[in-house]
This record gives sequence, structure tokens and C-alpha cells, in this order.
Amino acid sequence: MPEWPKKPLFETEMRHKANRFSCAVLTMSDKGSRGERVDESGAMLQEMLQKEGYQLRAYALVPDQIEAIAEILVQWVDQDKIDLILTTGGTGVSPTDVTPEAMRGVIEKEIPGMAEAMRAASLLLTPHAVLSRAIAGIRGRSLIINLPGSQKAARENIEVLLPTLPHALDKIQGGTSDCAALRNSTEAQI
Amino acid sequence: MPEWPKKPLFETEMRHKANRFSCAVLTMSDKGSRGERVDESGAMLQEMLQKEGYQLRAYALVPDQIEAIAEILVQWVDQDKIDLILTTGGTGVSPTDVTPEAMRGVIEKEIPGMAEAMRAASLLLTPHAVLSRAIAGIRGRSLIINLPGSQKAARENIEVLLPTLPHALDKIQGGTSDCAALRNSTEAQI
Amino acid sequence: MPEWPKKPLFETEMRHKANRFSCAVLTMSDKGSRGERVDESGAMLQEMLQKEGYQLRAYALVPDQIEAIAEILVQWVDQDKIDLILTTGGTGVSPTDVTPEAMRGVIEKEIPGMAEAMRAASLLLTPHAVLSRAIAGIRGRSLIINLPGSQKAARENIEVLLPTLPHALDKIQGGTSDCAALRNSTEAQI
Repeated sequence: MPEWPKKPLFETEMRHKANRFSCAVLTMSDKGSRGERVDESGAMLQEMLQKEGYQLRAYALVPDQIEAIAEILVQWVDQDKIDLILTTGGTGVSPTDVTPEAMRGVIEKEIPGMAEAMRAASLLLTPHAVLSRAIAGIRGRSLIINLPGSQKAARENIEVLLPTLPHALDKIQGGTSDCAALRNSTEAQI
Repeated sequence: MPEWPKKPLFETEMRHKANRFSCAVLTMSDKGSRGERVDESGAMLQEMLQKEGYQLRAYALVPDQIEAIAEILVQWVDQDKIDLILTTGGTGVSPTDVTPEAMRGVIEKEIPGMAEAMRAASLLLTPHAVLSRAIAGIRGRSLIINLPGSQKAARENIEVLLPTLPHALDKIQGGTSDCAALRNSTEAQI
Repeated sequence: MPEWPKKPLFETEMRHKANRFSCAVLTMSDKGSRGERVDESGAMLQEMLQKEGYQLRAYALVPDQIEAIAEILVQWVDQDKIDLILTTGGTGVSPTDVTPEAMRGVIEKEIPGMAEAMRAASLLLTPHAVLSRAIAGIRGRSLIINLPGSQKAARENIEVLLPTLPHALDKIQGGTSDCAALRNSTEAQI
């Protein structure tokens, strides 16, 4: 069984870098938006991001509606210039799950490798991992990543990407740090 | 080498659930449609689905033509309300292979993780696995999954997904069973 | 850790087959096009392809501009009938990285499994592998594959696909060799 990169490889540098970036969490849940369910995943993600060093700037809970989802994502990127947005919920195969469809109208560049890596890591834990239709992509200088609605799955998924997020955000915003150099230093530590 | 989930994890429950769903098999083959090749993959898939407990409702063999493929898929979903459709053939890189192109006009939501998992499992057996352009997706309340034309490859591919199909079909049709609960019970058995 | 198929499985046959096909290398680099960086990746890929037996027919270095990239790819396929085109650079998440966007307007069929396999293999070496947005696809009878800009990453990525390329090119051009037979002979050697 391959070991997925769940832990930051050089923790101090990661923390330092994450401090530069703002973040927000968006929860998609029909039940949650009617007050019928506590948003455990959204709370967990906010806590995790702050622990990583990101500046938490916004949180919202919206129903599973394409327009509502797209509207707040666009506002957070275009007006509020939030660097990193994590969403939770609406990525499955139920008729109400429309997060990926909302993303299609929001992102300008897709990053398929992020979703592939999250699903591949989950698949080592459960065959149901194939049902996540989560996508990740760039709008402007912001990165938006979909996560499943279950707290456990959301945590397992984002842990796969945490090590690379500060570097990704730096590049998305035009940083010219050398990937190869960073990579060599990473490999030297392995 | 990671063990891919080839076997149903809790067989009794799976059989029970599969009984609720109808299925069909569509074979794409220019040679087969001219009677020049016996459709071994289509026969294998019909047998496998029935053994899993699904109610076999339809089978057809069509040439590798986008319109012919799309027409029968739409009919099986919109008119016949078939829950699960497996296709075999036309997923490769030959000029005649157009199954994915036909799917684009039929499905409303893509489930990329299903195709990724099938290819990843096949890649452990042969480097040619990368050539399958198979996709899986949802139209209405039906699930359509492309498989390669070779009997061996089709079997290896669908075996990766069999454990999750009844749960997937339940969710696609609006079932509200808790994924997390199902998942925990699965993990408890591992 | 799964062993990725980095070496041709039956070397003699592969060499023989590669001899039938022409190839070209396209490097995307703003710095390179201004003469500010030596194109090490492009040079490495040309050497590697010739060593595999392919007939090198063209090489170019263009800036990271969608129109410039698309124009030369279309010319190499439609006019020069080059069988295999490898590109290097422009696949990341920087604002200047637009190779995948250029590809969207060029390819007629995408082969998602090629990009998935390259990313999955890279992910075993570095968590930054998820940032490659490289795609592979078919235009006419030609195969175009994006690779990252770093020489090391480009080499690691293409090595995953080298074993299957001659067979892929044969099929793309309408060859009717039996995949299953080839596959069985491959497996027999493993």
C-alpha cells in the first residue's frame, strides 16, 4: 500500500508560508441551511485551516443550489480576494448534489490532479471513494477545492493536499519560486 | 501493490440490494453488428450482472456510431427506466472508437472516479490500461458505465466497481441512506 | 509501492515499432523564447525519443501563449503529419501556464488515462505532482502528450507511457492489431 503524503514534509516552512494566505469555508447542505443539521465538516475545516496557519476570513452555509453556490464563490474570489476556498458537501451522486456543476461556471482552470489524488487516497479506505465528483480549480488568483460532506471523508481528502497548498497558492498568484528546487529539498528529506 | 476492492465486502447485503435494480448491456462493435464476431464480452457482462442479483432487462449490439449509441442509451434511460447500463467496446484510441464521445451527449453528470479507479486497477496489470477512454455518468436516475471491448479487460474493470454499485444506484435515485454509516460498517469488516 | 511500468517490456519489438513513427518536441517557455533559459527538457526529450527509435522531424520553442501553441500543434499534425508530439512546459498552475487550455482547442479526443498515470507515478515521488494539469489527446492520426517543464519531471512522466506508445500510435492510425493478444504476450513475459 503506497503511503500518501498526509503530513507536511517540512512543517516549519509550511506554517510560515500558509500565514500569507487568507481562506474561507463553504458548506453545501440543504438540511444544514434549514437548521436541521449541525455543520461538523465546516467547523472541522475551519479549525484545520487555522491550525495550518491560514487566515480564516469567511464561512457560509448554503443550500444545494447551483446559483447560490456559484454566487458566493464568485463574491469570495472577485470581491473579497480570498486565496483558498474549501467547500464541503454536494459532491456525490444524489440528485441534490450539484457542487461540481456549480464549480464549472466558476473556475477558469481545472486542476484534475488534486481530485484524482484525493479519490485515490480514499479508495485505499473505501470502495465508495469513486462516488466523489469533487473538483478543484483556479479562478483569478484563488484556489477552490471541493471536499465531500462527511467530516471524516473531508478530513482524509484535504490531508492529501495540505503539503502542497502553500506552494500551489504561491504559484497561482504568480510566484516564481523554482518548483524543481523545492522538489529537490523535499526529496532530500524523504 | 494495493489490493483493489474486487470482491463485495458484505456479500449478503449486496445481493439483496442489487435485486432492486434493473440492468442492461450494450455492446459496441462494427464487426459484431455485421455478425463477424461473437459478442463474448456482452455475454459475460449479462451473466455477471445476473449473478450479482440485478434484473436483466435489455441487451443490444450496435455499430461504433455516435448517433446509434446515444439513441439506445437515451431510450433505455428515458423510456425503459433501466437503472444500470454497462457498455462494452469503443473506448480505445482507434478512429472507430467513439463510445466516450457518444456518452458526452447522453450523461448529465460525470463520475470521473469510476473511470479513474478502473484504469488505475488495470494499470497494475498492463501499461496499455492508459488507453481506455471509458467514462461513467448519470442520466436521470440511471447509471451508465463504459467498459473496454476485450472480455478480460471488461471483467477486470467492472469488478473494481461492483462493491459500490448498489449503494451508488440507491443514492442516484434519491436514497437518503447515510454514507458514513455504511462506510463505518464496511471498515469494521476490513 | 506499486511498480510503474517504466521500462519497455519487450524491448526489441518496441524499438522496431517506434521506427515507423515520426515525432516532434515543442517547448513552452516565456524565458526560453526570449533566450533567457536553455531548453534542457526539450533537448532531453528529443534525445530520448530518438533513442527509442522515433524519427525526429521537428522541434520548436514558443512562448506561453494559447494561440502560438495551438498554431504550431495544428501545423505539425495537419500539414506535417507528425505522428507523436511531446510538449514540455506550461502545465502548472501559474497565471502564465496555458498549455492545457491551448490543447482544448487542438485535440479531438482526450486520453485521460495517460495524464492520470503520469500524475499517479509522480505522486509517489512528490506531493506537488497534483499540480500538473497536463493532458494527452488525439488530433487526426496524431498523438499529443503534455509534459511538465522541469527536465526531471518530464522524464519521469514520459517514462510511464513509453512502453505503450508504439501500440497506441498503431491503434490511433487505424491499426487492427489485437490488443488482447498483445496484452497476453506482455503478461506472459512478466
